[in-house]
Amino acid sequence: MDMLWNGWGDPAKAAPLPETVTGLLHDLLGVKPRSTPVLGLEDVRPPAVTAAPAALRALAAAVGDEHVRTDAQSRVRHTRGKSTPDLLRLRAGDVSDVPQAVVLPAGHDEVLDVLRACAAHGLAVVPFGGGTSVVGGLAPQRSAFVALDLRRMNGLLDLDPVSRTAVLQPGLRAPEAEALLAAEGFTLGHFPQSFEWATIGGYAAARSSGQASAGYGRFDEMVLALTLATPEGTIETGRAPRSAAGPDLRQLILGSEGAFGVITSVTVRIRPLPEVRVYEGWRFGSFEEGTAALRRLAQDGPRPTVLRLSDETETFIGLAQPDAIGADLASGGAGCLAIAGYEGTAEDTAYRRERAAAVLADCGGTPAGAEPGERWAHGRYSAPYLRDALLDAGAFAETLETAAFWSRIPDLYTAVRTALTDTLTRAGTPPLVMCHISHVYENGASLYFTVVSAQGEDPVAHWTPAKHAANEAVLAAGGTISHHHGVGTDHRDWYVREAGPLGVSALRAVKRRLDPDGLLNPGVLLPTD
Amino acid sequence: MDMLWNGWGDPAKAAPLPETVTGLLHDLLGVKPRSTPVLGLEDVRPPAVTAAPAALRALAAAVGDEHVRTDAQSRVRHTRGKSTPDLLRLRAGDVSDVPQAVVLPAGHDEVLDVLRACAAHGLAVVPFGGGTSVVGGLAPQRSAFVALDLRRMNGLLDLDPVSRTAVLQPGLRAPEAEALLAAEGFTLGHFPQSFEWATIGGYAAARSSGQASAGYGRFDEMVLALTLATPEGTIETGRAPRSAAGPDLRQLILGSEGAFGVITSVTVRIRPLPEVRVYEGWRFGSFEEGTAALRRLAQDGPRPTVLRLSDETETFIGLAQPDAIGADLASGGAGCLAIAGYEGTAEDTAYRRERAAAVLADCGGTPAGAEPGERWAHGRYSAPYLRDALLDAGAFAETLETAAFWSRIPDLYTAVRTALTDTLTRAGTPPLVMCHISHVYENGASLYFTVVSAQGEDPVAHWTPAKHAANEAVLAAGGTISHHHGVGTDHRDWYVREAGPLGVSALRAVKRRLDPDGLLNPGVLLPTD
Repeated sequence: MDMLWNGWGDPAKAAPLPETVTGLLHDLLGVKPRSTPVLGLEDVRPPAVTAAPAALRALAAAVGDEHVRTDAQSRVRHTRGKSTPDLLRLRAGDVSDVPQAVVLPAGHDEVLDVLRACAAHGLAVVPFGGGTSVVGGLAPQRSAFVALDLRRMNGLLDLDPVSRTAVLQPGLRAPEAEALLAAEGFTLGHFPQSFEWATIGGYAAARSSGQASAGYGRFDEMVLALTLATPEGTIETGRAPRSAAGPDLRQLILGSEGAFGVITSVTVRIRPLPEVRVYEGWRFGSFEEGTAALRRLAQDGPRPTVLRLSDETETFIGLAQPDAIGADLASGGAGCLAIAGYEGTAEDTAYRRERAAAVLADCGGTPAGAEPGERWAHGRYSAPYLRDALLDAGAFAETLETAAFWSRIPDLYTAVRTALTDTLTRAGTPPLVMCHISHVYENGASLYFTVVSAQGEDPVAHWTPAKHAANEAVLAAGGTISHHHGVGTDHRDWYVREAGPLGVSALRAVKRRLDPDGLLNPGVLLPTD
Repeated sequence: MDMLWNGWGDPAKAAPLPETVTGLLHDLLGVKPRSTPVLGLEDVRPPAVTAAPAALRALAAAVGDEHVRTDAQSRVRHTRGKSTPDLLRLRAGDVSDVPQAVVLPAGHDEVLDVLRACAAHGLAVVPFGGGTSVVGGLAPQRSAFVALDLRRMNGLLDLDPVSRTAVLQPGLRAPEAEALLAAEGFTLGHFPQSFEWATIGGYAAARSSGQASAGYGRFDEMVLALTLATPEGTIETGRAPRSAAGPDLRQLILGSEGAFGVITSVTVRIRPLPEVRVYEGWRFGSFEEGTAALRRLAQDGPRPTVLRLSDETETFIGLAQPDAIGADLASGGAGCLAIAGYEGTAEDTAYRRERAAAVLADCGGTPAGAEPGERWAHGRYSAPYLRDALLDAGAFAETLETAAFWSRIPDLYTAVRTALTDTLTRAGTPPLVMCHISHVYENGASLYFTVVSAQGEDPVAHWTPAKHAANEAVLAAGGTISHHHGVGTDHRDWYVREAGPLGVSALRAVKRRLDPDGLLNPGVLLPTD
């Protein structure tokens, strides 16, 4: 099934907002219904293909005629990713970032052939997995490019139950990967919000982090070996879990966002399927109090598998459990909701749950029972659907995220909230800014912000200054420009400042060596020359 | 205190071998006492300094006259590292790898000044921490070089008890780092065999792994931020524990072995000092059985803080507890000795110890009580002293190590043992080859080999083919060329094969960008042009 072309997910799952929420949007934020004409995919007319017939023939020679698609619908479906600006522009019929063609290789050697064909014909290449980038990672700064769709490379190539490793192809979607592993009794344990559509290659290229990262780690911690196809050949890396043989090339490829090459296989750590999965709610009097509790568990343990905390606003609105948005409004909200989840053997989860409960209570938490945890688990992939409904209702909704060391978290939280609130208020659309911590480490945590406001006249242009102000606030307060969404084109200018001129220059030296013609995702991650 | 110039550690701690061992060496391996004249440091005459006076003046301008040393003893003390070939050549008075001068900068800016001075005068630079490299990491392929000794940069610059982070200077020796942290109630938890002499910068540059890695992780997992001084300027990286902002530059600097720049500060994760430290012994019928037990604890937990297993030979010789070598000979040995250690709070260590004991027993282990654990803890830094005593007694002794995924461990073990045994036996000096697992991961483990034999006529030349055969065996059996010693010059040619031509080429592109004149540790890690 293809994803909704100008929104998120399965079109059958789209649902309008509850009336409580539309009322709130109107009363609190001044959101007015917009009567924009609904554009169908068949109504969108992308600009004509300008690639030379010889280029298309070379691509067809690499992957077979039927795997080079130049029809309008295929091209539009590979236009940009799933950020709110991406969707708003698609909804407005703007497909200026459309690829010339969609090319579907069947394996590593075909990827190399496609790269050679593109080099010979001056076409740029955008590796395309689930298409879920929310940072402009699929919008290169070059007009003539092909989308390299990895969906045919979707196998489980090997599973080693002794080492607990699996070799996965990059186009494998996460639910299918989990199904293939589950058949052997294993799980990857990686469940980001994009889970239902994301791919293994995308996880690796963008350094994804899943909702169970407290227990299973981030994706970059799960990767043991990688194969990268580049215009200059192949890199294979990873012969041991850890090594002292030089810099870690895996960590140079992870997060390279298609700018260094196309990831064609990923060897991951797998774990036995958990016997038990239990998620429960806790309430804290304030975000500060809850943050201290999360920090204590992250530092001293025992570590839950899932650990997250919504701030007062997110708790009040009910976004902590997206399927139940608005449900808490009647109760007037009550402090901050945390979710603690435990997955594993019956014995281990029971031990950790009991000990963690004692810590959470000692930190001022009040148990809120299983219901909030179950609601969260049920709605854990729903937020992007909710965004579509908000956009449909005439609201603007977007998310952004960062991370920092613990001692910087309070200032970072205030700085980003203030930047978003001030900028949008000055622009005449005072926002709701909600936040949660969803990834914890011994030394720090992530902050994930959701912004909802009325739409400006030109909603993308209206949002841009607020996003830039948030980026500035992140850097000024000592955060990283992205904890798990990545750099793409949207964060690039701030990333360059974060990495510093010499750091960026070192990465550009790597790119020039692997991609001397600058074919791969030009302008994504690193500036073009 | 300076380390013994042609051996290991504190000269006062040197001790001859017990008679049981000298007897065994003679009877089993044909080791004969060698009557080589003992060369004193004052007897060694390094070649004259050839660096231009202007170069030395430029260095003095950078760091001050008194911090540029050209006396013979300072230069000899900075000649090579502590591999057995290094020591044998020093003992023979061979100081052909001597630096022109030893330069001691006081901080980051002075390091930059030194690099500029060296660039201006065509001198290569070898960053020098504890001088404990055992892979030729201090022996560049260029005759005119200076040793950049970091001992004056030995401070604790910052400690953040909320984030549990500390900023350490690179020349800080490990025991002093632990003392500074302990004064604030914290520990780094990094205890490699070189602990008493190694430095923080060396840990980072060489991707060190400590004996408590099962509990505290490897050094590269402890590093949160780094500052690197290069001939082209400074890189600062690390604003959060984890980030999706591009490739992880920290992991590009870690393991770069001085070839990309000089690490001038390291921000590390710290942990509260443990309330309890307890180490105990377990016996297994075979290395295979013990390996399976270690794997189960590494994969399913609970994870001890220290977890190691000696093979039958190492157990028989008693090298599992270096302070007690030979003590087990009377008992005839008994299978394989494992050490399991627990550090942490009283409650946590009690829980882990009890559960781990049940797992070890379930895997066939027999408890051997506290005595082997205490002996191991007492002798944990003694093995290099033992090597000196073996060399003094006319034996040859060296170590090498690798790592791989669990399913490859049995073949890797056999392949390396066979390569060493066959090569040295063919050369007329049948060896004892001992092995232990000392670092475990969910997906694999390290193998650490100790070789003892009679010395050949030219002991370095005699050893070289065996070492090369072991390297070939490591690569052929799917291991990494080093788990924690690093690449240096000794492993470089095999590292190049492990990383592959394109991977190496990408790293050389980084080096060229940061060190365009190839001043930094030429020939270490990466081949020179």
